[in-house]
Amino acid sequence: MTTFDMAELDVHDVYKLLTGLVVPRPIGWVGSRSPDGVDNLAPFSFFNVVAASPPTVIFAPTGQPGARKDTLANVRASGEFTLSVVTAELLDAMNATSVDAPPEISEFGHAGLRPEPATLVDACYVGEARAAMECRVTQIIDVGSAPMGSSVVFGEVAVVHVDDQLLDGTRVDQAALRAVGRHVGGLYSHTDHLVHRDRPSWSP
Amino acid sequence: MTTFDMAELDVHDVYKLLTGLVVPRPIGWVGSRSPDGVDNLAPFSFFNVVAASPPTVIFAPTGQPGARKDTLANVRASGEFTLSVVTAELLDAMNATSVDAPPEISEFGHAGLRPEPATLVDACYVGEARAAMECRVTQIIDVGSAPMGSSVVFGEVAVVHVDDQLLDGTRVDQAALRAVGRHVGGLYSHTDHLVHRDRPSWSP
Repeated sequence: MTTFDMAELDVHDVYKLLTGLVVPRPIGWVGSRSPDGVDNLAPFSFFNVVAASPPTVIFAPTGQPGARKDTLANVRASGEFTLSVVTAELLDAMNATSVDAPPEISEFGHAGLRPEPATLVDACYVGEARAAMECRVTQIIDVGSAPMGSSVVFGEVAVVHVDDQLLDGTRVDQAALRAVGRHVGGLYSHTDHLVHRDRPSWSP
Repeated sequence: MTTFDMAELDVHDVYKLLTGLVVPRPIGWVGSRSPDGVDNLAPFSFFNVVAASPPTVIFAPTGQPGARKDTLANVRASGEFTLSVVTAELLDAMNATSVDAPPEISEFGHAGLRPEPATLVDACYVGEARAAMECRVTQIIDVGSAPMGSSVVFGEVAVVHVDDQLLDGTRVDQAALRAVGRHVGGLYSHTDHLVHRDRPSWSP
């Protein structure tokens, strides 16, 4: 084993190690609207659910340029955002929205995606997505400092839209969903190799 | 599309929808030590990196019984924990540690795993793991309330151990790592279908 002392590593090496070991990461494809009315769209893999009552997600923009920096400014101002689920057929469009575009550019148009207006919040989600959520910011917690500190945005999920063909009640068909996970550098994983394990019960 | 209003759903349906759509989730296999010296080990998929300077991870125990509840009590008391990476060959052992065992039982022994004492923090990691981290709690933020509110534990990563055979500098070989992702219910995904995409550059 090689042991790395984080205090002695360059921040880019820290980032590379962490994003290579905390995998696969889900992708939060965040839609937000600027005060000028530009519909922004950018992917974040420092993203997850953190609670169910109330339904709460977090995503964490780090000290990043372009669309991802614009997202943080927008959600700070509006307090609202959407999340679209990144599935296999949308991988290339998602990647196109990771470009460092200036704030007046909508990544929806840039990536050839249809902005679907949310029903409860002032933002759009990806019209082509098979599932999306509408969220309201509950708190933003700043962690660390430049160059790769972040702001952890907590959002409460108000509404969820899901393609009927994926649903059995509230159970989402994982084989049909074909979600994509994020790894290090430009690597992604497809979720087409699924396995099942029963949770064990305790017997003393 | 079916639209679900979260305010009108039972919390178990909220949980099922969110854990079916925010996928694949990385698994934080958390090692902690109780005030009585019992080495606890439990998996959490409400887990991710959130910053690189300083290197910061979060995991979020929800209102859960057994080992996972013990983990929260331990890290509140000790302020320290380890994270072991769950790879394909450790999937069944990880699942065995998700059992709701009483606090005096060590899940290391229960799952037939070797507790490896951490070098900087007062806890063990999985001796069989190909990578592990040693972390110190920086803050704990309570979100929501019972039955499925949570406590979001923020930890700073002090030290990372990685199997030499996985490393090229600080780059972790994703095909060799074979990390496992968490989905809904008892479903997991293997990360053996990797694809690469270059991040696009902006050209006006």
